[in-house]
Amino acid sequence: MKLQVAFDLQSSNEILNFIDKNGDLIDIIEIGTPLIMREGIKSVQKIKKTFPKKTVLADMKIMDAGLLEAQIGFDSGADIITVLGLASKKTLSDVKQAAVENSKQIMVDMINHPNPENKWNQLINMDIGLCCLHTANDDTKKGETPLNDLERFYNLHGGKNIAVAGGINPDMIRKINSFHPEIVIVGGYIANSRNHRNALEEIHRAMELK
Amino acid sequence: MKLQVAFDLQSSNEILNFIDKNGDLIDIIEIGTPLIMREGIKSVQKIKKTFPKKTVLADMKIMDAGLLEAQIGFDSGADIITVLGLASKKTLSDVKQAAVENSKQIMVDMINHPNPENKWNQLINMDIGLCCLHTANDDTKKGETPLNDLERFYNLHGGKNIAVAGGINPDMIRKINSFHPEIVIVGGYIANSRNHRNALEEIHRAMELK
Repeated sequence: MKLQVAFDLQSSNEILNFIDKNGDLIDIIEIGTPLIMREGIKSVQKIKKTFPKKTVLADMKIMDAGLLEAQIGFDSGADIITVLGLASKKTLSDVKQAAVENSKQIMVDMINHPNPENKWNQLINMDIGLCCLHTANDDTKKGETPLNDLERFYNLHGGKNIAVAGGINPDMIRKINSFHPEIVIVGGYIANSRNHRNALEEIHRAMELK
Repeated sequence: MKLQVAFDLQSSNEILNFIDKNGDLIDIIEIGTPLIMREGIKSVQKIKKTFPKKTVLADMKIMDAGLLEAQIGFDSGADIITVLGLASKKTLSDVKQAAVENSKQIMVDMINHPNPENKWNQLINMDIGLCCLHTANDDTKKGETPLNDLERFYNLHGGKNIAVAGGINPDMIRKINSFHPEIVIVGGYIANSRNHRNALEEIHRAMELK
Protein backbone atom coordinates (compact mmCIF):
# COMPACT_ATOMS: atom_id res chain seq x y z
CA MET A 1 0.00 0.00 0.00
CA LYS A 2 1.35 3.41 -1.00
CA LEU A 3 0.77 6.70 0.77
CA GLN A 4 -0.32 9.70 -1.32
CA VAL A 5 -0.32 13.00 0.55
CA ALA A 6 -2.65 15.71 -0.78
CA PHE A 7 -1.55 19.33 -0.48
CA ASP A 8 -4.51 21.67 -0.88
CA LEU A 9 -3.98 24.58 1.49
CA GLN A 10 -0.25 25.18 1.47
CA SER A 11 1.67 27.23 -1.09
CA SER A 12 4.14 25.45 -3.36
CA ASN A 13 7.00 26.96 -1.32
CA GLU A 14 5.56 25.48 1.87
CA ILE A 15 5.28 22.11 0.15
CA LEU A 16 8.92 22.25 -0.95
CA ASN A 17 9.88 22.75 2.68
CA PHE A 18 7.53 19.94 3.79
CA ILE A 19 8.93 17.45 1.26
CA ASP A 20 12.45 18.40 2.17
CA LYS A 21 11.76 17.34 5.77
CA ASN A 22 9.28 14.49 5.26
CA GLY A 23 9.59 13.31 1.67
CA ASP A 24 10.97 9.95 2.84
CA LEU A 25 7.53 9.13 4.28
CA ILE A 26 5.56 10.03 1.13
CA ASP A 27 5.17 7.82 -1.96
CA ILE A 28 3.07 10.19 -4.09
CA ILE A 29 2.94 13.98 -3.74
CA GLU A 30 -0.50 15.28 -4.73
CA ILE A 31 -0.77 18.91 -5.82
CA GLY A 32 -4.41 19.52 -4.91
CA THR A 33 -7.06 21.21 -7.04
CA PRO A 34 -7.27 24.39 -4.91
CA LEU A 35 -3.51 24.86 -5.19
CA ILE A 36 -3.60 24.41 -8.98
CA MET A 37 -6.40 27.01 -9.06
CA ARG A 38 -4.39 29.44 -6.93
CA GLU A 39 -0.93 29.08 -8.45
CA GLY A 40 -1.60 27.36 -11.76
CA ILE A 41 0.24 24.31 -13.06
CA LYS A 42 3.63 25.89 -12.33
CA SER A 43 3.10 24.66 -8.75
CA VAL A 44 3.43 21.11 -10.09
CA GLN A 45 6.44 22.06 -12.20
CA LYS A 46 8.21 23.57 -9.19
CA ILE A 47 7.79 20.48 -7.01
CA LYS A 48 8.75 18.03 -9.77
CA LYS A 49 11.81 20.05 -10.74
CA THR A 50 13.06 20.15 -7.16
CA PHE A 51 12.25 16.49 -6.44
CA PRO A 52 12.53 14.79 -9.86
CA LYS A 53 12.64 11.30 -8.34
CA LYS A 54 9.37 11.69 -6.43
CA THR A 55 6.06 10.70 -8.05
CA VAL A 56 3.95 13.83 -8.44
CA LEU A 57 0.19 13.78 -9.10
CA ALA A 58 -1.66 16.85 -10.41
CA ASP A 59 -5.26 16.75 -9.16
CA MET A 60 -6.68 18.55 -12.20
CA LYS A 61 -10.12 16.86 -12.05
CA ILE A 62 -10.42 17.12 -15.83
CA MET A 63 -14.04 17.25 -17.03
CA ASP A 64 -13.64 18.45 -20.63
CA ALA A 65 -11.03 19.28 -23.27
CA GLY A 66 -9.24 16.05 -22.38
CA LEU A 67 -6.29 16.24 -24.77
CA LEU A 68 -5.59 19.92 -24.11
CA GLU A 69 -5.85 19.81 -20.33
CA ALA A 70 -4.01 16.50 -19.93
CA GLN A 71 -1.15 17.92 -21.98
CA ILE A 72 -1.00 20.98 -19.68
CA GLY A 73 -0.56 18.54 -16.79
CA PHE A 74 2.05 16.32 -18.43
CA ASP A 75 4.02 19.31 -19.76
CA SER A 76 4.39 20.46 -16.15
CA GLY A 77 6.16 17.21 -15.32
CA ALA A 78 3.26 15.49 -13.50
CA ASP A 79 3.63 11.71 -13.44
CA ILE A 80 -0.09 11.19 -12.86
CA ILE A 81 -3.05 13.50 -13.58
CA THR A 82 -6.67 13.07 -12.53
CA VAL A 83 -9.82 13.05 -14.69
CA LEU A 84 -13.36 12.78 -13.32
CA GLY A 85 -15.19 9.45 -13.65
CA LEU A 86 -18.25 11.60 -14.44
CA ALA A 87 -16.59 13.05 -17.55
CA SER A 88 -17.82 11.89 -20.93
CA LYS A 89 -16.39 8.71 -22.46
CA LYS A 90 -14.67 10.80 -25.13
CA THR A 91 -12.98 13.00 -22.52
CA LEU A 92 -11.81 9.93 -20.59
CA SER A 93 -10.42 8.30 -23.72
CA ASP A 94 -8.71 11.54 -24.82
CA VAL A 95 -7.04 11.89 -21.43
CA LYS A 96 -5.95 8.25 -21.65
CA GLN A 97 -4.56 8.88 -25.15
CA ALA A 98 -2.53 11.84 -23.87
CA ALA A 99 -1.18 9.66 -21.06
CA VAL A 100 -0.07 6.97 -23.54
CA GLU A 101 1.58 9.56 -25.80
CA ASN A 102 3.46 11.02 -22.82
CA SER A 103 4.20 7.62 -21.20
CA LYS A 104 2.47 8.85 -18.06
CA GLN A 105 -0.45 7.70 -15.95
CA ILE A 106 -3.97 8.82 -15.17
CA MET A 107 -6.14 8.35 -12.10
CA VAL A 108 -9.91 8.40 -12.59
CA ASP A 109 -11.48 10.25 -9.68
CA MET A 110 -14.88 8.67 -8.94
CA ILE A 111 -16.00 11.57 -6.74
CA ASN A 112 -19.81 11.69 -6.61
CA HIS A 113 -20.15 8.91 -9.20
CA PRO A 114 -23.34 6.95 -8.45
CA ASN A 115 -21.88 3.60 -9.47
CA PRO A 116 -18.07 3.49 -9.57
CA GLU A 117 -17.83 -0.32 -9.64
CA ASN A 118 -19.85 -0.49 -12.89
CA LYS A 119 -17.99 2.45 -14.42
CA TRP A 120 -14.73 0.65 -13.69
CA ASN A 121 -15.84 -2.23 -15.95
CA GLN A 122 -15.80 0.24 -18.87
CA LEU A 123 -12.54 1.79 -17.78
CA ILE A 124 -10.72 -1.54 -17.45
CA ASN A 125 -11.40 -2.06 -21.16
CA MET A 126 -9.71 1.30 -21.81
CA ASP A 127 -6.69 0.11 -19.84
CA ILE A 128 -7.00 2.92 -17.29
CA GLY A 129 -4.35 2.60 -14.60
CA LEU A 130 -5.80 3.93 -11.38
CA CYS A 131 -9.26 4.43 -9.92
CA CYS A 132 -9.86 6.69 -6.94
CA LEU A 133 -12.86 5.97 -4.71
CA HIS A 134 -13.36 9.42 -3.30
CA THR A 135 -15.89 10.87 -0.90
CA ALA A 136 -16.12 14.63 -1.48
CA ASN A 137 -14.36 16.59 1.24
CA ASP A 138 -17.60 18.56 1.63
CA ASP A 139 -19.47 15.31 2.33
CA THR A 140 -16.92 13.94 4.81
CA LYS A 141 -17.98 16.84 7.05
CA LYS A 142 -21.41 15.19 7.22
CA GLY A 143 -19.73 11.93 8.34
CA GLU A 144 -19.68 10.17 4.97
CA THR A 145 -16.70 7.92 4.20
CA PRO A 146 -15.51 5.97 1.14
CA LEU A 147 -15.76 2.66 3.06
CA ASN A 148 -19.09 1.47 1.59
CA ASP A 149 -17.96 2.22 -1.97
CA LEU A 150 -14.69 0.46 -1.25
CA GLU A 151 -16.37 -2.70 0.06
CA ARG A 152 -18.73 -2.99 -2.95
CA PHE A 153 -15.87 -2.23 -5.30
CA TYR A 154 -13.52 -4.74 -3.64
CA ASN A 155 -16.07 -7.53 -3.85
CA LEU A 156 -16.23 -7.10 -7.62
CA HIS A 157 -12.71 -6.06 -8.57
CA GLY A 158 -10.32 -6.52 -5.63
CA GLY A 159 -8.05 -3.73 -4.45
CA LYS A 160 -5.59 -3.60 -7.34
CA ASN A 161 -5.39 -0.19 -9.06
CA ILE A 162 -7.52 1.36 -6.34
CA ALA A 163 -6.87 4.57 -4.42
CA VAL A 164 -9.09 5.65 -1.53
CA ALA A 165 -9.68 9.27 -0.51
CA GLY A 166 -11.96 11.35 1.68
CA GLY A 167 -11.41 12.04 5.35
CA ILE A 168 -8.77 9.30 5.70
CA ASN A 169 -7.13 9.01 9.16
CA PRO A 170 -5.31 6.18 10.98
CA ASP A 171 -8.60 4.73 12.32
CA MET A 172 -10.05 4.51 8.84
CA ILE A 173 -6.85 3.03 7.43
CA ARG A 174 -7.17 0.17 9.94
CA LYS A 175 -10.65 -0.52 8.50
CA ILE A 176 -9.45 -0.08 4.92
CA ASN A 177 -6.50 -2.50 5.26
CA SER A 178 -8.57 -5.63 4.64
CA PHE A 179 -9.49 -4.33 1.15
CA HIS A 180 -5.82 -3.96 0.14
CA PRO A 181 -6.11 -0.80 -1.96
CA GLU A 182 -2.98 0.18 -3.87
CA ILE A 183 -2.97 3.75 -2.56
CA VAL A 184 -4.44 5.62 0.41
CA ILE A 185 -4.71 9.40 0.08
CA VAL A 186 -4.39 11.52 3.20
CA GLY A 187 -4.78 15.29 3.29
CA GLY A 188 -6.47 17.08 6.18
CA TYR A 189 -5.34 14.63 8.88
CA ILE A 190 -1.71 15.53 8.25
CA ALA A 191 -2.27 19.22 7.43
CA ASN A 192 -4.25 19.72 10.65
CA SER A 193 -1.85 17.81 12.93
CA ARG A 194 0.47 19.71 15.27
CA ASN A 195 3.45 17.60 14.30
CA HIS A 196 3.34 16.58 10.64
CA ARG A 197 6.09 13.99 10.90
CA ASN A 198 4.42 12.29 13.85
CA ALA A 199 1.14 12.20 11.91
CA LEU A 200 2.87 10.66 8.88
CA GLU A 201 4.51 8.01 11.07
CA GLU A 202 1.19 7.24 12.72
CA ILE A 203 -0.37 6.77 9.27
CA HIS A 204 2.44 4.40 8.29
CA ARG A 205 1.99 2.34 11.45
CA ALA A 206 -1.74 1.97 10.65
CA MET A 207 -0.92 0.97 7.05
CA GLU A 208 1.38 -1.81 8.25
CA LEU A 209 -1.24 -3.49 10.46
CA LYS A 210 -2.76 -6.65 9.07
CA MET B 1 -29.65 37.66 -24.82
CA LYS B 2 -26.08 38.25 -23.60
CA LEU B 3 -22.89 37.07 -25.27
CA GLN B 4 -20.29 35.32 -23.13
CA VAL B 5 -16.96 34.73 -24.86
CA ALA B 6 -14.85 31.85 -23.54
CA PHE B 7 -11.07 32.20 -23.63
CA ASP B 8 -9.38 28.82 -23.28
CA LEU B 9 -6.32 28.86 -25.48
CA GLN B 10 -4.99 32.39 -25.26
CA SER B 11 -2.73 33.74 -22.51
CA SER B 12 -4.10 36.42 -20.20
CA ASN B 13 -1.95 39.00 -22.03
CA GLU B 14 -3.52 38.02 -25.35
CA ILE B 15 -6.96 38.36 -23.77
CA LEU B 16 -6.14 41.84 -22.49
CA ASN B 17 -5.29 42.84 -26.05
CA PHE B 18 -8.45 41.15 -27.41
CA ILE B 19 -10.73 42.92 -24.91
CA ASP B 20 -9.04 46.22 -25.58
CA LYS B 21 -10.03 45.89 -29.24
CA ASN B 22 -13.34 44.02 -29.00
CA GLY B 23 -14.63 44.42 -25.45
CA ASP B 24 -17.58 46.49 -26.69
CA LEU B 25 -18.99 43.33 -28.33
CA ILE B 26 -18.66 41.11 -25.25
CA ASP B 27 -21.05 41.05 -22.28
CA ILE B 28 -19.27 38.43 -20.17
CA ILE B 29 -15.57 37.54 -20.37
CA GLU B 30 -15.03 33.87 -19.51
CA ILE B 31 -11.60 32.84 -18.27
CA GLY B 32 -11.67 29.19 -19.34
CA THR B 33 -10.65 26.16 -17.29
CA PRO B 34 -7.47 25.41 -19.30
CA LEU B 35 -6.28 28.99 -18.79
CA ILE B 36 -6.94 28.83 -15.04
CA MET B 37 -4.97 25.56 -15.01
CA ARG B 38 -2.09 27.13 -16.92
CA GLU B 39 -1.80 30.52 -15.24
CA GLY B 40 -3.80 30.07 -12.05
CA ILE B 41 -6.48 32.43 -10.78
CA LYS B 42 -4.22 35.43 -11.27
CA SER B 43 -5.35 35.34 -14.92
CA VAL B 44 -8.84 36.32 -13.70
CA GLN B 45 -7.42 38.98 -11.41
CA LYS B 46 -5.43 40.53 -14.24
CA ILE B 47 -8.42 40.83 -16.58
CA LYS B 48 -10.77 42.15 -13.89
CA LYS B 49 -8.22 44.71 -12.67
CA THR B 50 -7.70 46.05 -16.18
CA PHE B 51 -11.40 46.02 -17.09
CA PRO B 52 -13.17 46.53 -13.74
CA LYS B 53 -16.50 47.39 -15.37
CA LYS B 54 -16.67 44.19 -17.43
CA THR B 55 -18.38 41.09 -16.04
CA VAL B 56 -15.75 38.35 -15.63
CA LEU B 57 -16.59 34.67 -15.18
CA ALA B 58 -14.03 32.18 -13.83
CA ASP B 59 -14.78 28.73 -15.27
CA MET B 60 -13.45 26.85 -12.25
CA LYS B 61 -15.79 23.83 -12.63
CA ILE B 62 -15.78 23.33 -8.86
CA MET B 63 -16.43 19.71 -7.86
CA ASP B 64 -15.37 19.68 -4.19
CA ALA B 65 -14.18 21.97 -1.39
CA GLY B 66 -16.94 24.42 -2.32
CA LEU B 67 -16.28 27.17 0.24
CA LEU B 68 -12.52 27.13 -0.24
CA GLU B 69 -12.49 27.06 -4.04
CA ALA B 70 -15.33 29.55 -4.47
CA GLN B 71 -13.47 31.97 -2.21
CA ILE B 72 -10.34 31.59 -4.38
CA GLY B 73 -12.48 32.65 -7.35
CA PHE B 74 -14.23 35.57 -5.67
CA ASP B 75 -10.99 36.85 -4.10
CA SER B 76 -9.60 37.14 -7.63
CA GLY B 77 -12.38 39.57 -8.52
CA ALA B 78 -14.54 37.14 -10.55
CA ASP B 79 -18.17 38.27 -10.74
CA ILE B 80 -19.38 34.76 -11.54
CA ILE B 81 -17.75 31.37 -10.88
CA THR B 82 -18.84 27.95 -12.13
CA VAL B 83 -19.59 24.79 -10.15
CA LEU B 84 -20.50 21.43 -11.69
CA GLY B 85 -24.13 20.29 -11.59
CA LEU B 86 -22.68 16.83 -10.89
CA ALA B 87 -21.08 18.02 -7.64
CA SER B 88 -22.65 16.91 -4.36
CA LYS B 89 -25.55 18.91 -2.91
CA LYS B 90 -23.30 20.05 -0.07
CA THR B 91 -20.67 21.36 -2.50
CA LEU B 92 -23.34 23.22 -4.49
CA SER B 93 -24.82 24.78 -1.36
CA ASP B 94 -21.36 25.74 -0.04
CA VAL B 95 -20.52 27.46 -3.33
CA LYS B 96 -23.87 29.25 -3.20
CA GLN B 97 -23.15 30.33 0.39
CA ALA B 98 -19.79 31.77 -0.66
CA ALA B 99 -21.52 33.67 -3.48
CA VAL B 100 -24.04 35.18 -1.07
CA GLU B 101 -21.30 36.17 1.39
CA ASN B 102 -19.36 37.84 -1.42
CA SER B 103 -22.44 39.34 -3.14
CA LYS B 104 -21.42 37.52 -6.33
CA GLN B 105 -23.04 34.98 -8.63
CA ILE B 106 -22.60 31.34 -9.54
CA MET B 107 -23.33 29.44 -12.72
CA VAL B 108 -24.05 25.72 -12.44
CA ASP B 109 -22.41 23.93 -15.35
CA MET B 110 -24.59 20.95 -16.32
CA ILE B 111 -21.86 19.37 -18.46
CA ASN B 112 -22.48 15.62 -18.77
CA HIS B 113 -25.41 15.75 -16.31
CA PRO B 114 -27.93 13.05 -17.32
CA ASN B 115 -30.97 15.11 -16.36
CA PRO B 116 -30.32 18.85 -16.09
CA GLU B 117 -34.00 19.85 -16.16
CA ASN B 118 -34.74 17.79 -13.03
CA LYS B 119 -31.59 18.93 -11.28
CA TRP B 120 -32.65 22.52 -11.90
CA ASN B 121 -35.80 21.93 -9.82
CA GLN B 122 -33.54 21.33 -6.79
CA LEU B 123 -31.30 24.27 -7.66
CA ILE B 124 -34.18 26.74 -8.03
CA ASN B 125 -35.00 26.03 -4.38
CA MET B 126 -31.43 26.97 -3.52
CA ASP B 127 -31.88 30.26 -5.37
CA ILE B 128 -29.07 29.49 -7.83
CA GLY B 129 -28.72 32.28 -10.38
CA LEU B 130 -27.54 30.70 -13.62
CA CYS B 131 -27.66 27.27 -15.24
CA CYS B 132 -25.42 26.35 -18.15
CA LEU B 133 -26.60 23.65 -20.56
CA HIS B 134 -23.25 22.51 -21.83
CA THR B 135 -22.23 19.86 -24.31
CA ALA B 136 -18.63 18.86 -23.57
CA ASN B 137 -16.21 20.29 -26.11
CA ASP B 138 -14.91 16.75 -26.59
CA ASP B 139 -18.44 15.59 -27.50
CA THR B 140 -19.13 18.48 -29.92
CA LYS B 141 -16.39 16.94 -32.07
CA LYS B 142 -18.71 13.93 -32.48
CA GLY B 143 -21.47 16.27 -33.65
CA GLU B 144 -23.38 16.54 -30.36
CA THR B 145 -25.01 19.88 -29.54
CA PRO B 146 -26.84 21.32 -26.51
CA LEU B 147 -30.04 21.81 -28.57
CA ASN B 148 -31.94 18.74 -27.32
CA ASP B 149 -31.17 19.55 -23.68
CA LEU B 150 -32.21 23.13 -24.31
CA GLU B 151 -35.57 22.18 -25.83
CA ARG B 152 -36.45 19.80 -22.97
CA PHE B 153 -35.28 22.35 -20.46
CA TYR B 154 -37.17 25.23 -22.09
CA ASN B 155 -40.43 23.27 -22.12
CA LEU B 156 -40.22 22.89 -18.34
CA HIS B 157 -38.55 26.08 -17.18
CA GLY B 158 -38.40 28.63 -20.01
CA GLY B 159 -35.15 30.35 -20.97
CA LYS B 160 -34.66 32.61 -17.94
CA ASN B 161 -31.37 32.03 -16.08
CA ILE B 162 -30.14 29.75 -18.85
CA ALA B 163 -26.78 29.82 -20.59
CA VAL B 164 -26.00 27.54 -23.54
CA ALA B 165 -22.53 26.29 -24.44
CA GLY B 166 -20.85 23.71 -26.65
CA GLY B 167 -19.88 24.27 -30.26
CA ILE B 168 -22.01 27.44 -30.59
CA ASN B 169 -21.78 29.23 -33.95
CA PRO B 170 -24.09 31.66 -35.80
CA ASP B 171 -26.11 28.80 -37.36
CA MET B 172 -26.78 27.28 -33.98
CA ILE B 173 -27.67 30.65 -32.48
CA ARG B 174 -30.40 31.01 -35.10
CA LYS B 175 -31.84 27.69 -33.87
CA ILE B 176 -31.35 28.62 -30.22
CA ASN B 177 -33.11 32.01 -30.51
CA SER B 178 -36.63 30.59 -30.14
CA PHE B 179 -35.71 29.27 -26.66
CA HIS B 180 -34.68 32.75 -25.43
CA PRO B 181 -31.73 31.75 -23.21
CA GLU B 182 -30.26 34.53 -21.11
CA ILE B 183 -26.69 33.87 -22.28
CA VAL B 184 -25.00 32.19 -25.23
CA ILE B 185 -21.39 31.15 -24.77
CA VAL B 186 -19.09 31.15 -27.78
CA GLY B 187 -15.47 30.03 -27.73
CA GLY B 188 -13.92 28.14 -30.62
CA TYR B 189 -15.94 29.84 -33.36
CA ILE B 190 -14.37 33.18 -32.50
CA ALA B 191 -10.92 31.86 -31.57
CA ASN B 192 -10.66 29.96 -34.86
CA SER B 193 -11.92 32.77 -37.09
CA ARG B 194 -9.48 34.77 -39.22
CA ASN B 195 -11.01 38.06 -38.19
CA HIS B 196 -12.20 38.01 -34.59
CA ARG B 197 -14.18 41.25 -34.81
CA ASN B 198 -16.03 40.08 -37.91
CA ALA B 199 -16.88 36.80 -36.15
CA LEU B 200 -18.19 38.68 -33.10
CA GLU B 201 -20.34 40.92 -35.31
CA GLU B 202 -21.67 37.89 -37.16
CA ILE B 203 -22.62 36.31 -33.81
CA HIS B 204 -24.42 39.49 -32.78
CA ARG B 205 -26.37 39.61 -36.03
CA ALA B 206 -27.52 36.00 -35.46
CA MET B 207 -28.50 36.84 -31.85
CA GLU B 208 -30.71 39.70 -33.04
CA LEU B 209 -32.76 37.57 -35.46
CA LYS B 210 -36.27 36.64 -34.25
